[in-house]
Amino acid sequence: MSDSSSQLLHPLLAARWSPTTFNDSEQISETEVEAMLEAARWAPSAGNSQPWAFIVGRRGDPAHARLVGHLAPSSRTWAENAGLLIANLSHRLVEETDWEYSEFSHYDLGQAVAHMTFQASSMGFSVRQFRAFDRDGLSAEFDVPRHWEVTTMSAIGRAADVASPADPARASRDRRPVDDLRWPADRLS
Amino acid sequence: MSDSSSQLLHPLLAARWSPTTFNDSEQISETEVEAMLEAARWAPSAGNSQPWAFIVGRRGDPAHARLVGHLAPSSRTWAENAGLLIANLSHRLVEETDWEYSEFSHYDLGQAVAHMTFQASSMGFSVRQFRAFDRDGLSAEFDVPRHWEVTTMSAIGRAADVASPADPARASRDRRPVDDLRWPADRLS
Repeated sequence: MSDSSSQLLHPLLAARWSPTTFNDSEQISETEVEAMLEAARWAPSAGNSQPWAFIVGRRGDPAHARLVGHLAPSSRTWAENAGLLIANLSHRLVEETDWEYSEFSHYDLGQAVAHMTFQASSMGFSVRQFRAFDRDGLSAEFDVPRHWEVTTMSAIGRAADVASPADPARASRDRRPVDDLRWPADRLS
Repeated sequence: MSDSSSQLLHPLLAARWSPTTFNDSEQISETEVEAMLEAARWAPSAGNSQPWAFIVGRRGDPAHARLVGHLAPSSRTWAENAGLLIANLSHRLVEETDWEYSEFSHYDLGQAVAHMTFQASSMGFSVRQFRAFDRDGLSAEFDVPRHWEVTTMSAIGRAADVASPADPARASRDRRPVDDLRWPADRLS
């Protein structure tokens, strides 16, 4: 990346990362939760199909405890500290059929969660998405019908180590170079 | 949504929409393109798998003309006016196998495109994603190997009608209410 494009990168995107250390006493308000859902709500989707839904648990409410109960051991050590846990659901099948609801239901859910993450970042929160939970158990717990899938979960809160970034998740943060994700330049011209 | 959560929604998310009317003389700089790719590059992904790649065409370069050649008639009428066309690719299979590369390749590509869209918005551009293109033809044109999929395309530029929002795409902009995407509240408590 050139220096000039680096300077153009939006500060909320440049600063975003996925911590595994959350402040375990931070309380996220219902108003803040609503703003995150609103951000997801206005994401674009194929044919405006909006193939997303969210199970929301704030620390101290019954849904949070029920979500924690289905975390895998590997995620529970850190995710239960997050003041907000959200299960991110995608609409996979047309109700009572085996027909695909949308070719883009995962893609569009990813966009909605990215919007939610951006909104959370703008309010000072960090988000870590993960798959380490009991999908079947969680689906049964919340009566998720078969045509919806609990695709991922998000742990949302304030990173405990903002001042001293000792979280191993930050140290391991790395990406392929831009030249590797831009389709082979020698074939493009 | 309560008034207070509405006020919290980040202005770039609140203002985002997907126009079908682009200024057909706007030129997007290489530095701006790099900033958009950088935004996508730093998106999160499952196990940091980064299952994304992008074919980029700026107005006037050969790639733009080659991408335009594979637009469907329904998208060509408006998308060819966009100063920047990007084909968004997801890594679907492990090379030379039928094994899924990642359960989350669509989901993660969706997030990367959302990051790119957010970055574009912060620089004053609008993005409309679409599927109305010849996937096989475009894949052959750019020698996309079988284990990658051209999932969507993005048309990026300045909306022609910012001052006078007559684009029918804006008039039809609508979403399910928040209560409908938050998993049934009566089952959560």
